[in-house]
Amino acid sequence: MNRIRKTALLVTFFIILVLTFAIAEKQESFNPYVDSAGTITLPPDFRSTWAYLGTWVVTSQIAAGPEQNKMSHANGIHEVFTQPESLKAYQKTGSWPDGAVLILEVRPVQWDDLPTGHVMYAGDEIEISVMAKDSTNRFNGHANWGGGWGWGLFKAADHQTNASQDHKIDCLGCHEVAKDTDWVFIQGYPALR
Amino acid sequence: MNRIRKTALLVTFFIILVLTFAIAEKQESFNPYVDSAGTITLPPDFRSTWAYLGTWVVTSQIAAGPEQNKMSHANGIHEVFTQPESLKAYQKTGSWPDGAVLILEVRPVQWDDLPTGHVMYAGDEIEISVMAKDSTNRFNGHANWGGGWGWGLFKAADHQTNASQDHKIDCLGCHEVAKDTDWVFIQGYPALR
Repeated sequence: MNRIRKTALLVTFFIILVLTFAIAEKQESFNPYVDSAGTITLPPDFRSTWAYLGTWVVTSQIAAGPEQNKMSHANGIHEVFTQPESLKAYQKTGSWPDGAVLILEVRPVQWDDLPTGHVMYAGDEIEISVMAKDSTNRFNGHANWGGGWGWGLFKAADHQTNASQDHKIDCLGCHEVAKDTDWVFIQGYPALR
Repeated sequence: MNRIRKTALLVTFFIILVLTFAIAEKQESFNPYVDSAGTITLPPDFRSTWAYLGTWVVTSQIAAGPEQNKMSHANGIHEVFTQPESLKAYQKTGSWPDGAVLILEVRPVQWDDLPTGHVMYAGDEIEISVMAKDSTNRFNGHANWGGGWGWGLFKAADHQTNASQDHKIDCLGCHEVAKDTDWVFIQGYPALR
């Protein structure tokens, strides 16, 4: 009896161990740029290997609201990318699959006079914003997760640290108006229209 | 003797046939978007599957020269792409490999007032320019080939026909000033800098 009890205990322990690893594996594998605690890391090499969605150019001052006529903190050229498979999934279903990552890179405007006219193009990186789709609300209560996404902000000087302390303060200020399109400004992305 | 001569003739004919096919195959395979006569076709699906290089925004009038203060014919947002393998090759060697294709898509500027400020983004396609690298001067004398490149222009209304009649008139007017960087405005492409 004692031996049976010991065996049962050992088997139970083994099953719990296997389940723990299986769950950890599942949590980790939903997105290679998000660890099991919800910490977001900056995907490498997105500019050369990911799908390009579109560009926003912000050269003007704020048009309305309490900050009217102030120079925008977002001044610059914003280029947006996603994984090729996430673009394909969106084109097929009209929504972002779990694990989709959107990246917005901000660079200052450079100018040149070319035969085509006075042109603007992108200078050196200022900062990079990251959105990581989480369809199952894995990190409920985490300050950088909410609305079905994880939110990240990486300054050019430190690509290792998510500079966003709280996505409601650091990210939603701009994204709030795109809430009805899952927080993404899809009107600017020809491949999604 | 007569029989040997016949056999020799047959063998010679067979060798010529094989060589002809081999050469034709080689000419056709240097670039899937260029046929053996040098006709350029528009690569499909580049926007979703190719590597993005950068964006030029032309909103202003012509800054200098005889057309000064006229609205530029190139007004709009210009987005530039290449094959992923051509980007990799350029990053490694500093020059475009034979068969490299560069695509520049022109779209009109759209405006919106967002929390970030008064923003510009790309509307619906106006036209697409194509450059196809030819390191071996395959199409010497062809009006749309010169300077180590084939030159194409496709209007949104007709993606089947190269609208460029003569690359010296239809393309080099803008590209002349980039002659020293193999006719490509590399300063606008962060992945190449």
